[in-house]
Amino acid sequence: MAASVSDDTAARPPSAVLLMGARAFADLFDESRLARLRALVRIDDPLRLDALDTADARRRLADAEYLITGWGGPSLGADVLDAAPRLRGVLHTGGSVKHLVAPAFWDRGVVVTSAADANAIPVAEFTLATILLEAKRAPAYIEGYARSREVAGAWRDAIPPAVTFGGTVGIVGLSRVGRRVAELLRPFDLRVLAADPHADPAVAASVGARLTDLDDLLRASDVVTIHAPELPETHHLLDARRLGMLRPHAVLINTARGSLIDTDALMARCRAGLLRAVLDVTEPEPLGPDSPLFDTPGIVLSPHIAGAMHAETRRLADSALDDLDALVHGRSPRHRVDGASLGIIA
Amino acid sequence: MAASVSDDTAARPPSAVLLMGARAFADLFDESRLARLRALVRIDDPLRLDALDTADARRRLADAEYLITGWGGPSLGADVLDAAPRLRGVLHTGGSVKHLVAPAFWDRGVVVTSAADANAIPVAEFTLATILLEAKRAPAYIEGYARSREVAGAWRDAIPPAVTFGGTVGIVGLSRVGRRVAELLRPFDLRVLAADPHADPAVAASVGARLTDLDDLLRASDVVTIHAPELPETHHLLDARRLGMLRPHAVLINTARGSLIDTDALMARCRAGLLRAVLDVTEPEPLGPDSPLFDTPGIVLSPHIAGAMHAETRRLADSALDDLDALVHGRSPRHRVDGASLGIIA
Repeated sequence: MAASVSDDTAARPPSAVLLMGARAFADLFDESRLARLRALVRIDDPLRLDALDTADARRRLADAEYLITGWGGPSLGADVLDAAPRLRGVLHTGGSVKHLVAPAFWDRGVVVTSAADANAIPVAEFTLATILLEAKRAPAYIEGYARSREVAGAWRDAIPPAVTFGGTVGIVGLSRVGRRVAELLRPFDLRVLAADPHADPAVAASVGARLTDLDDLLRASDVVTIHAPELPETHHLLDARRLGMLRPHAVLINTARGSLIDTDALMARCRAGLLRAVLDVTEPEPLGPDSPLFDTPGIVLSPHIAGAMHAETRRLADSALDDLDALVHGRSPRHRVDGASLGIIA
Repeated sequence: MAASVSDDTAARPPSAVLLMGARAFADLFDESRLARLRALVRIDDPLRLDALDTADARRRLADAEYLITGWGGPSLGADVLDAAPRLRGVLHTGGSVKHLVAPAFWDRGVVVTSAADANAIPVAEFTLATILLEAKRAPAYIEGYARSREVAGAWRDAIPPAVTFGGTVGIVGLSRVGRRVAELLRPFDLRVLAADPHADPAVAASVGARLTDLDDLLRASDVVTIHAPELPETHHLLDARRLGMLRPHAVLINTARGSLIDTDALMARCRAGLLRAVLDVTEPEPLGPDSPLFDTPGIVLSPHIAGAMHAETRRLADSALDDLDALVHGRSPRHRVDGASLGIIA
C-alpha cells in the first residue's frame, strides 16, 4: 500500500483543460474546490478557456487527458477527439451533455460524466417549495391582499380551499428531479402519484410515489409538476386535451422544458380561471417582451432559475471533482453517462 | 376484559357541548370525524353552539362533562365553571388557550388540552417553503421578470446571490413551530441556528439546530424566522438595534405575532434596501388599507394564513378527538396544557 501511494504521488499528474464561461467558473470553484482540482490534475495558466480555436487551446488539447466542461464553454464536436488523442474523460459540471458532447466520444471509449444528479437538487427544492405554497394557495392570498388591502372580502372567498392536507401531487416524469421531488414530499400529508413510461413501480414505491397512467394522474392531482425530458415524443405532452383533464383549481409547475406544454392551450385554461401555472421554462425561451404569457392571469413566470445558481453550483463542482478523482485513481466514476441512454434522458 | 368492554358500551356516553363558529365547524368535522365524535360523547342538536348566554346553552352546560371549543366560539370565564358543575375537560381545537380559558379552570382541576401541536404543522410548512424560495431569491426573480419582461439586465444583477447551499437559517424561538421548522430543514444544505432562552441544547441538537445567543443568530443568519410567543418580554424583540445586526441581504419571516417586531424600524431597513420581510402577522392586525406596510418595497404580506385552514384543520379535529378519546376512557390526553406554563407559551 505504502509503495503504491508513493508511486501515485510521484507520477506527473495528468493534464486537464477547463472549458467554461467566466461566470460559471467563478461560481463553481471557490478556493477549496480549486485546490482540490489542482491536486488531481495539471492545468496550465490561464486556468479557464472558453473556446477551442486558438493555438494555445490546440496545444493544450494535444496533451489533455481530461476535459472539465461547464456552462458558457464550447460544445465538443468529433474534431476535438482528433485534436486530443490522449483524452480519457469529459467531466461536465452541468446537467445535460446531450447537446454538448458528440456521440463519437462514446464510440471512442471516452468516459463522459455529468453533474445532473447534483443539478437535480435545486430544481427539486424549488419545486417542493412551490408545491407547498401553491397547495396552501399562499401566492393567491398574497396577491389578493396586496391588491385589496383588506384581510377578508370577495377576493378571499374566491380562492379555492387549501389542499396541503390530503391533497394529491402528480409528478410527470420520474427522472432524477422527479424522484427527488417525491422524496422531499415524504414529510408532508400529501398523496404522490407519478407517471413515467420508463419507470419501475418498485423505484416509484421506494420514493413514496404510486405509478399511474398520465391521464389518470392529471385527473386526480391538485398540483402537477413536470420533470420529463424534451424528446420528440414529449413535445406538447400536455396539449389541450390533456390540460382539459386537470381539476378546476389545479396548479401546474414546469421546471423541465417549455416545449412539454402547449402554451396556447395553457393560456386559454388560465384565462378561463381554471388553472394556475408556475413556469420556470417557456416556449419560446427567452420570451419576447410582448409575450402574452406576461399578461395572462394565473401565470407566474420565473426566468429559468430553478437549476443550480451561485453557490448552488458548488454541488456540481463537487460532483465533477468526485468523478475526476475516481478516474485519476483508476476507479469507476459515479456519474458516468451511458451513451445508449441519450435517447431517453434530458 | 370482555366484561369491561361491555360495561363501557352499556354506560350512557358522557355529555359534551361543541362551542365554535360555523365555518370552523364545517372545516374541522367531515363525516368521518363527526362519526368519531358521536361515538365518544352525547351531543344534543343543534350540534354546535357559538354562545353560552341562551337557556338552551345553560341547560346543556348543567349536564356537560366535556367542552369541545374552536375558533369563533365564546371565551370561557370562571362563571362557566359554576354553570357546568360536572365539567371534566376542555378540548380546544385551536392552538392557544391562553386568552380562551380562565385560569380558574386549572384551579378546579379541569383538564385543558389544545391542538397547538397539530396547528404547528401548517405554520412550519409555510415557513419551510418560504425559507427555501427566499433563500433562492426566487420571489425577487419573479417580481423582476414580471416588471422588466427580460431574462437578464440590471434588475437581475441587483439580486443578491442565492444562499440555498451553505446558507444559515436562524430560528427565533424553539417552540413547537420552531422545532418543526428545524426538523423540516434537515434534508437541505443549510445550517440551522436557534435562539431561545428556555430551550435545552439537547432538544435543539435533536432537531438539527445549534442553540446560540439571539444577537449572534441575527448577525450570522441569511434567513431569520420568528416563532417566539407574545409576552411582555418579547414585545419588539426585534427592535431597531437588533434589526441593525442583520446581514445586508437578510430575509425576515414572521408567522408568530406582529408585536415581536418594531414595524417602523423594519420598514426603514426595507426601504434602505437592506432587508426583505415576509409577514403573515402584523402590528396592528388587521392593517388599515392606508398602512405603509403595503407600500414598502421588500415587504411581502399574507393575511394570517400560515396556521391551519380548510382541510388542514382536520389535523386539529384529530388531535382533539384523540384527547377526548383518552379522557373518556380514563387515559391521559397527549396534549394537556399545563397551567403553570401559561406565562411562557404562545
